[in-house]
Amino acid sequence: MAKKKMILDLDTGVDDALALAYAVADPEVDLIGIVASYGNNLLDVCAENSLKLLELLGQTDVPVYKGLPHSSTTDSFEVMQVSKDIHGNNGIGDVELPTPKRAVEAESGVDFYIEAAHKYGKDLIIIPTGPMTNLAAALEKDPEIAHLIGNVTFMGGALTVEGNVTDVAEANINQDAKAANTVLQSDLPLTMVGLDVTLRTLLTKKETQQWRDLGTKAGKAYADITDFYIDAYYNLDIDKNGCALHDPLAVGVSIDPTFVQTISLFMKVNYEEHNYGRTIGDNSRLNDPNPNVKVAVNVDKERYLKVFMERLNSVLKEH
Amino acid sequence: MAKKKMILDLDTGVDDALALAYAVADPEVDLIGIVASYGNNLLDVCAENSLKLLELLGQTDVPVYKGLPHSSTTDSFEVMQVSKDIHGNNGIGDVELPTPKRAVEAESGVDFYIEAAHKYGKDLIIIPTGPMTNLAAALEKDPEIAHLIGNVTFMGGALTVEGNVTDVAEANINQDAKAANTVLQSDLPLTMVGLDVTLRTLLTKKETQQWRDLGTKAGKAYADITDFYIDAYYNLDIDKNGCALHDPLAVGVSIDPTFVQTISLFMKVNYEEHNYGRTIGDNSRLNDPNPNVKVAVNVDKERYLKVFMERLNSVLKEH
Repeated sequence: MAKKKMILDLDTGVDDALALAYAVADPEVDLIGIVASYGNNLLDVCAENSLKLLELLGQTDVPVYKGLPHSSTTDSFEVMQVSKDIHGNNGIGDVELPTPKRAVEAESGVDFYIEAAHKYGKDLIIIPTGPMTNLAAALEKDPEIAHLIGNVTFMGGALTVEGNVTDVAEANINQDAKAANTVLQSDLPLTMVGLDVTLRTLLTKKETQQWRDLGTKAGKAYADITDFYIDAYYNLDIDKNGCALHDPLAVGVSIDPTFVQTISLFMKVNYEEHNYGRTIGDNSRLNDPNPNVKVAVNVDKERYLKVFMERLNSVLKEH
Repeated sequence: MAKKKMILDLDTGVDDALALAYAVADPEVDLIGIVASYGNNLLDVCAENSLKLLELLGQTDVPVYKGLPHSSTTDSFEVMQVSKDIHGNNGIGDVELPTPKRAVEAESGVDFYIEAAHKYGKDLIIIPTGPMTNLAAALEKDPEIAHLIGNVTFMGGALTVEGNVTDVAEANINQDAKAANTVLQSDLPLTMVGLDVTLRTLLTKKETQQWRDLGTKAGKAYADITDFYIDAYYNLDIDKNGCALHDPLAVGVSIDPTFVQTISLFMKVNYEEHNYGRTIGDNSRLNDPNPNVKVAVNVDKERYLKVFMERLNSVLKEH
């Protein structure tokens, strides 16, 4: 079987770092590029974090493109304090990694999306794990790509559970609800991996200890980065039993959809002030055929965690 | 197979009238009683409507019990104008039916619930199609019944779609969100048949014409009652393609769960002012085993409509 051409859209971020390692490690994936987003940190910091992690994992042939520096409805972006509390001031658990030798590409992430959609068509999978500002901008610049791209599996939203920013809004959607609505209301074939499932897939220090025990630079760095995140989950009382595997679950589901139970739905994102950022079924299209969004509502967490650890171990032991 | 002992909790109501006929007609159901609720109309009107309809359908052996006249958080109840617009001033499409020869029972609906739970245990199915004030009161009076009753399949709520009173609240839940929360957070085995599925099961005048063509009194009355409802859906722009089979879908699903796709979840109902009446997953119990609520999220509407019409035709042609 031909490998899947994958683009990650990361606001790197601890769980973005885990998603990156998963994608690098999976034998079915050809990671053709990373588009950087603002979100867990500033755009430039997130882009540099991806470059650092790719170098740590020996993936210096994967290009990194810069996306947009702020949401479609604001003029600037500032990192929220809670993001620093969860991901560290530098976005990757305050772990210091060497300054990358490479720089980001000259081409914009938005143009890279459009180019890749035309080049790879149905073979292309896009995984946004932060705000969907970049993908929405690409759709607006070239609406045709909605009919070209094979699948978009995004981490974001909350359908059957409460949000983590407000009672209705999940953090990624909350950054740019209008962009998220543009993506969800497009004709793109979408899979939503939201809090419904990611809050159910927890990682503990028992697993990060396995990485530490590998005795490699990458194993130690990933253990340190992730332990910061696990500690933050504990100290902020998000979950005392481990950290959620938000972003890497999206990567896993894009490769093996059987990790999750899904329901099919046309969806919208509310970007009015009242209940801003709510991801919900579009009542006006309830009886239309062929909904474009598969929403993950339950997860085989044991099997996912097992594959996640196999993937991570396989790449961390080599570097 | 032994018939299922069923109690309907109705705020009768046009679609409650359809639920009643479905339960009467189903060969697997032993309808042991109807508990009346306020909701689509005043308690006394709803109780009398059930008596009238039972007489129309020749079911004068099914007792009707009065429940509570208003919600658990108010001192009185007034019928909303929109309820009159949808169900008619008398609750049954302004169709005049003879004054019933019988009266309601002396025993309260709340005590009838408790008695039936102890008597029938796991064989008992309860179908609330209005506010859940009565069932919540029974649970508070005798908490043990949560572990006795076989199943509660309620029409109410909205999980994956927007509400019909506010963007988050469905009408039945909105009447008494605190009572609904008491029921959902109990240990009762529950099935939620909410707007997620009921807005997808539409009835049209093509079907009511079949009842009219039966040439019976009951056939004409049910066609007239339901046509009022279909017209209201059209005129109020709720749906131009027919009326939703809210309450009878709950009856159908309680007998044959394969009409719907469900997801399992612990749930709560918000009864604070902000987002009052929202039915949503309980994030604090996401990783607990054996959730007590099965939420219907999709429906085989063609098959359901076929069985619904078989049931209705079979009873309406006889009376």
